[in-house]
Amino acid sequence: MSSPAGKPARPIAIIGGTGPAGMGLAYRWVRAGETIIIGSRDDQRAQLAAAAIELKVGKQANISGMENSAACAAADILMLTIPFEGQAALLKQLKPSIAEGSILIDATVPLASSVGGRASRPLGVWQGSAAQQAAELVPKGVSVVAAFHNLSAELLAGEEPLDCDVVVCSDDPDAAQLIRELAALIPGVRAIDGGKLENARIVEQITALLIGLNIRHKGHSGIRITGLPPAAYR
Amino acid sequence: MSSPAGKPARPIAIIGGTGPAGMGLAYRWVRAGETIIIGSRDDQRAQLAAAAIELKVGKQANISGMENSAACAAADILMLTIPFEGQAALLKQLKPSIAEGSILIDATVPLASSVGGRASRPLGVWQGSAAQQAAELVPKGVSVVAAFHNLSAELLAGEEPLDCDVVVCSDDPDAAQLIRELAALIPGVRAIDGGKLENARIVEQITALLIGLNIRHKGHSGIRITGLPPAAYR
Repeated sequence: MSSPAGKPARPIAIIGGTGPAGMGLAYRWVRAGETIIIGSRDDQRAQLAAAAIELKVGKQANISGMENSAACAAADILMLTIPFEGQAALLKQLKPSIAEGSILIDATVPLASSVGGRASRPLGVWQGSAAQQAAELVPKGVSVVAAFHNLSAELLAGEEPLDCDVVVCSDDPDAAQLIRELAALIPGVRAIDGGKLENARIVEQITALLIGLNIRHKGHSGIRITGLPPAAYR
Repeated sequence: MSSPAGKPARPIAIIGGTGPAGMGLAYRWVRAGETIIIGSRDDQRAQLAAAAIELKVGKQANISGMENSAACAAADILMLTIPFEGQAALLKQLKPSIAEGSILIDATVPLASSVGGRASRPLGVWQGSAAQQAAELVPKGVSVVAAFHNLSAELLAGEEPLDCDVVVCSDDPDAAQLIRELAALIPGVRAIDGGKLENARIVEQITALLIGLNIRHKGHSGIRITGLPPAAYR
């Protein structure tokens, strides 16, 4: 999927991408040479966010900003970075703009903070996980991949390599492999095949544990999976 | 709590301790100089297990074997290492033998394998976690500490330092601190304050994720928590 110049020809639309998680991922991927579209409810906000990243990375940055549904229509890889309370409504709204064959990367974490509770407590989701809720809401023929829940937005915005693994769960092995490749573009990140989408139930909850640890110990925690053979880590 | 010779005067009873997890913990703690009582339904089996560890460690090993209720009565620190399907019945049976002021360390993981399903899928427990179920079943004045869920029994039985952190959750901060000290006696292990017992819900589920990774990638996986200040790790 590279253009003749060796540059990837696959735009990634980061839906709800003006928040810290979306901006952090956009920054790291743009630096790795990927083409990024920041999506936002507000066209102008998206463009401002894109301009901020271009300012940080330089003129070679392949980044633009668009309203969310336009961003969806312009990319086959969609990265969802919005709070859980907005996930279902946004996916219903964007459904007509998501093309068959697209990949939706879901990093949503169902936290009790969505309903006025603590961010260190997960909410129970009827489908089992936010990612499985997303899978129910996307058009037919769209693959959902759960990933990137456990990366610190603060550390993504920085310059240092991250000290964190990304566990990738999906029922579509090809989509999962592509997203593991995208994860491994972030310095310090190793991507691990976490199996089926249903396993996102556990990966999402780990974020709540890490948030609790961050509050208790004042850090930006992440996880490393140890003890697997080298082939398990991309 | 050290005797004049500097040896800890606190026996740890490992209830249901003849299985791989119990034997692995016993081995590491005996090597660290702790006094261990292996508990089993069968007195003789417990003594055989203790003898096996003494053979491995040498005559200086402080280890003995007893029937579970006798082991409970002989120690103030109880470590529960039994499958989830046996947890409630065993705790009800042992209740009269557990002294007020004791600490019960619970490493139980509610896995679907308890009901004929997959070990990579957690079961929902009404109380929230196996540790919270344990807290409901112990006598008044007994503190429950959830810990050691994510250590590989195979690696505990070996000679190498482990590459795994132990997240310790309890509603009794003093008990939690003591158990973090016990965790840190295992070479390579760092103990992390995971907050209240309710957080065991997430720590227990991580084991199911790790079991899935072990099956998929053929390893003995564990977790490291990254990104916290040094004071967070014991």
